[in-house]
Amino acid sequence: MKSNGLDAVLATSRENAMYYTGYESPKDEKPFMIAPSDGRPILVLSPLLNEAETKYGNIVFMETKKDFFREIKPFRTLGYNEKSLSVSLFREISKPGMRIRPVGLMLENLRIVKDQYEINQIRNAVRITGKVIERAGNSAFGKTERKIANGIVIGYLEHGVAEAYESIVSSGKQSYFVHHSPNGRAVARSDAVLIDTGCAFNGYCSDITRMFFKRLDAKRRKVYEDAKHIFEEMKDAMKPGRKISDLEKLQNKLFAKGGYTVFHKFGHSIGLSVHEPDGDVLKEGMVMAIEPGIYIKNLGGFRIEDMILIKRGRAETLSGFIPVL
Amino acid sequence: MKSNGLDAVLATSRENAMYYTGYESPKDEKPFMIAPSDGRPILVLSPLLNEAETKYGNIVFMETKKDFFREIKPFRTLGYNEKSLSVSLFREISKPGMRIRPVGLMLENLRIVKDQYEINQIRNAVRITGKVIERAGNSAFGKTERKIANGIVIGYLEHGVAEAYESIVSSGKQSYFVHHSPNGRAVARSDAVLIDTGCAFNGYCSDITRMFFKRLDAKRRKVYEDAKHIFEEMKDAMKPGRKISDLEKLQNKLFAKGGYTVFHKFGHSIGLSVHEPDGDVLKEGMVMAIEPGIYIKNLGGFRIEDMILIKRGRAETLSGFIPVL
Repeated sequence: MKSNGLDAVLATSRENAMYYTGYESPKDEKPFMIAPSDGRPILVLSPLLNEAETKYGNIVFMETKKDFFREIKPFRTLGYNEKSLSVSLFREISKPGMRIRPVGLMLENLRIVKDQYEINQIRNAVRITGKVIERAGNSAFGKTERKIANGIVIGYLEHGVAEAYESIVSSGKQSYFVHHSPNGRAVARSDAVLIDTGCAFNGYCSDITRMFFKRLDAKRRKVYEDAKHIFEEMKDAMKPGRKISDLEKLQNKLFAKGGYTVFHKFGHSIGLSVHEPDGDVLKEGMVMAIEPGIYIKNLGGFRIEDMILIKRGRAETLSGFIPVL
Repeated sequence: MKSNGLDAVLATSRENAMYYTGYESPKDEKPFMIAPSDGRPILVLSPLLNEAETKYGNIVFMETKKDFFREIKPFRTLGYNEKSLSVSLFREISKPGMRIRPVGLMLENLRIVKDQYEINQIRNAVRITGKVIERAGNSAFGKTERKIANGIVIGYLEHGVAEAYESIVSSGKQSYFVHHSPNGRAVARSDAVLIDTGCAFNGYCSDITRMFFKRLDAKRRKVYEDAKHIFEEMKDAMKPGRKISDLEKLQNKLFAKGGYTVFHKFGHSIGLSVHEPDGDVLKEGMVMAIEPGIYIKNLGGFRIEDMILIKRGRAETLSGFIPVL
């Protein structure tokens, strides 16, 4: 902060408050955090969050917005997160005499490389998702997608955690829809089922995809094998120092070779958010979800997703213990 | 729009997309919607939402942000929602030659008064929450708060819906914490349990609070009766034409009379969001959640919450069928 000439930074996302203060707010809240360049971050919260006092020691409750403005007033140069701050609040804090600067990347870049505590939380999230996805996939046939998705929600609750995002359960041709919403379609014995699911363990997320089937006809088998091949090639390329943009190019090349269309990025950094900023270059200690996917209309979608920990040499596949058919 | 000199409006929340196009995106998405002053709204979506094509007929998929900018380019004067638009996206759309204006209130004010279809969806959400909250409350004693909260999630899934927000289950002194996160505390026979829960039915939300207990000692009985009395007075005051600010003053007066501190607003409008803007004045056809609450440290919180439909004469209590102890 000091090298950027900032007196303080205002963070406006649940994840940044969690990262910098340890306070895990209820899910729909966006707590304000003011981090002075010298001193402990202040949480500025709605009085409805009075339980936070039992969890963190530097809180101001906001009866009205005046209480918030009073807290930021002492700072002449204030950084803010341009990606989570709304235009209306930005206008309210843009007062004469105050210099405000976008520092969203700085705030989030600090979160990219994980420490041992964070990696342990992620390992726990992955461990639980492994159990839940296997049970859901192996008991999928004959059930509707919605019933399978409900079973996933319940499975997480039994492990004391919750879904990190709405799980995708897509069967047959419906898996062509990348972010498919599970519906009343029953999974047939001849279907492949794609399950994309994750949970949050002490705030840290997992994000895993597996496919389940009894057998695949030749056409789908070919595409699935190609998807797995691209997936392995991408995982092999995940080494410290590799540029994210080069990895995107590699995915494009591998897809082009197979005659396939790229629908989305090869993966994303993951932590307190399911999708975190990647930065420009892979670094030791980053956790990435790798998920190249092939989607063909009237045939289906074919995707595996693993979470890997970037290490010197070969990355560690955190979700490698979950079988891939 | 035309009377405001706007060529188009850009909406950036899931709820506004749902309201103006009928497209219900997965929960974590923020679809872009561009509504021209003459013609049908366009959804500008991530290619991951390719399923949307089966549900709405006017979609542009955004391979890169360029696709989005191309769609807004034809409009000289563009309205936007300052409450949901981030500063970074605002800067990107602020191009020379384009006039952009905040119209968040206009966008959301149209949603305040509900039509018959909307009221029917809300009635369904309330009906299901009534069943779920009664079962959870009547089987609460001896269970942990977390287990009760899990039962609520599962109850909703059995009815084919999902929680609209993380349910609050708070027992004993813990109900002093207004937005309490359910934890491992087991509910004792001498406790009062507060349950605040709601679901979404076709996108439309419920938000209901009830308290459950076997008996209350004199001290808590007195506060609970006072809370119920204030609650009834507030409900009686909910008539078309009443100013929201006057209703806040009424709540302040009723709390002061009892020697209690006000922790939050008496209630809020509800619809596609749990908390919708109220506007300035109650209108026929608005749906409000009324929830004055009394919170006393080391004693607990005391709150009832009903959803009411504002009508000429007396409001209809949509959740009146759910017993209040």
